[in-house]
Formats: sequence, C-alpha cells, structure tokens
Amino acid sequence: MEPRITLITLAVADLQRSLAFYRDGLGWPTEGIVGEEIENGAVVFFDLQKGMKLALWPRTSLAAEARVAAEGMSAATFEIAHNVHTRQEVDEVVALARAAGAKVTNPPAHRAWGGYSAHFQDPDGHLWEIAWNPDPRFAVD
Amino acid sequence: MEPRITLITLAVADLQRSLAFYRDGLGWPTEGIVGEEIENGAVVFFDLQKGMKLALWPRTSLAAEARVAAEGMSAATFEIAHNVHTRQEVDEVVALARAAGAKVTNPPAHRAWGGYSAHFQDPDGHLWEIAWNPDPRFAVD
Repeated sequence: MEPRITLITLAVADLQRSLAFYRDGLGWPTEGIVGEEIENGAVVFFDLQKGMKLALWPRTSLAAEARVAAEGMSAATFEIAHNVHTRQEVDEVVALARAAGAKVTNPPAHRAWGGYSAHFQDPDGHLWEIAWNPDPRFAVD
Repeated sequence: MEPRITLITLAVADLQRSLAFYRDGLGWPTEGIVGEEIENGAVVFFDLQKGMKLALWPRTSLAAEARVAAEGMSAATFEIAHNVHTRQEVDEVVALARAAGAKVTNPPAHRAWGGYSAHFQDPDGHLWEIAWNPDPRFAVD
C-alpha cells in the first residue's frame, strides 16, 4: 500500500452552511454542490495543491456509504494543517477564519516546536491548525 | 487563504499501537516516534506524495495544543481517501488492512458514483476509503 492520500472528506451537518464557510468565508474556489442526481451524492469539492482534494459531504451520506453510526462529534479526533509562508500570514488567516465564523480555540502564538501557530474549528467543529514552521521539511512551495 | 493542506494529523489513543498498524501493518515507511524531548511533542510522521504528510499524535497532546476537549470519538466525522489504480488493488489493500487489524465496515463493492470502493477503520476508528474511480479527475499518478 503506497503512502498516499488523495482526498479528505469532512462530514458536515449542513452542506450549504459549510459551503458558505469555505467558499465565501475562506475564499476557496469551488463549483459548489455537485452530484445531487446520485443517492447520497451531493458533495462539494475543492481542488487543493498538486492533485489533492477536499470534500464537504453530509454526515448522513458518509455514515450511509461507510456503514458507520452518524451520531457524535469530537473535536480531538483529527486536525488538518494549513502551513503558510510567514508568521504574519498566520495572523491574517486566523482573522479571516474568525470573520467567517470560525471558533478560534487557540490564538496565534509561538510554540515549543519552534514555530508560530493557531487553531480554529469550522462550523462543524473540525479542527484546523494554521502554522508557520521554520523547519525546511515543512516549507510551503 | 490558499486552498492548501500540508499535513493531516490523526489523534490516537496509543502511539505505539498506531505506529504498528501503519508502519508494520500497512507498510508505510517512517522514522518512528520523534519529538519526545518536547512537551506533547512525541509524534510519528509519514511522508506522502508530493510534500504531504500524515501524522499520528496522542489525542491528549492534540487536545492540549489545540485547547479542545480530549473526550469522545465519532466515526462519521471525516474520512481519508486512498485512491488506487485498479479494482483489484482495492481488494488487495483491504485484505492488507484487515490482516493489520482494521475493521472493514464496508467491503469492496461497485458504487452508484461509478467506482469500486471499500471502507475500513484504523485502531482508533478513523475512517479510510480505498477507492478506484474511473473519473479522470481522480486519476492516481
């Protein structure tokens, strides 16, 4: 099994609300909701760097297709990191997310691992880290 | 804010158990546990394609750094997709994961969206989709 991730899907309670947060709030381009003609198919895709995609998908659809329980939500299950080029950019992205309605759980600050970062939760509680990391292994193109 | 994801971190209950699942079970190369000299720093990194990384991090560390509650776990919060080149490869990866101790919630089958896929959960319940998708937008390099 090759170490490869092609797509990250965030399960959401309200597809329109999440579309508004990511498209209008954070400014990420998307075609909007597609796939409505398929059962459990309504989904929003964002093209990320280098062929990666992020999807927003109703939690009920994910639960039905993956055959898992739809109930419950925990913040400390995973996080997605968005690395940036400068410390100032961390502040800017957090301000943008806050204006878009994100809950900032951890304001921008210098970290023991040598960088500068902050955390926020999207409307469903999904956890994002916005990070500037001087370690060249985490350099952003 | 550019649409970019640099790192996905899975919060885990037992770092050694998860390291064994991904490194030994799925065969993903890694340096193993690093960062133990930093408070909440012990972490496992896997280099994925094109600069992406996957991290395994104790749930208590994630909760402490992001300042969110450490309790709770829900399967239907997100999923990570691993796209493959052929239908047969879906079967092979699912067999590998099952042998590594994964819980297969949804065995390989043809899907309404036109592909062939399956779902499993890792030792903490994190949901993976293994998918072959004939849509060229999901082609694997």
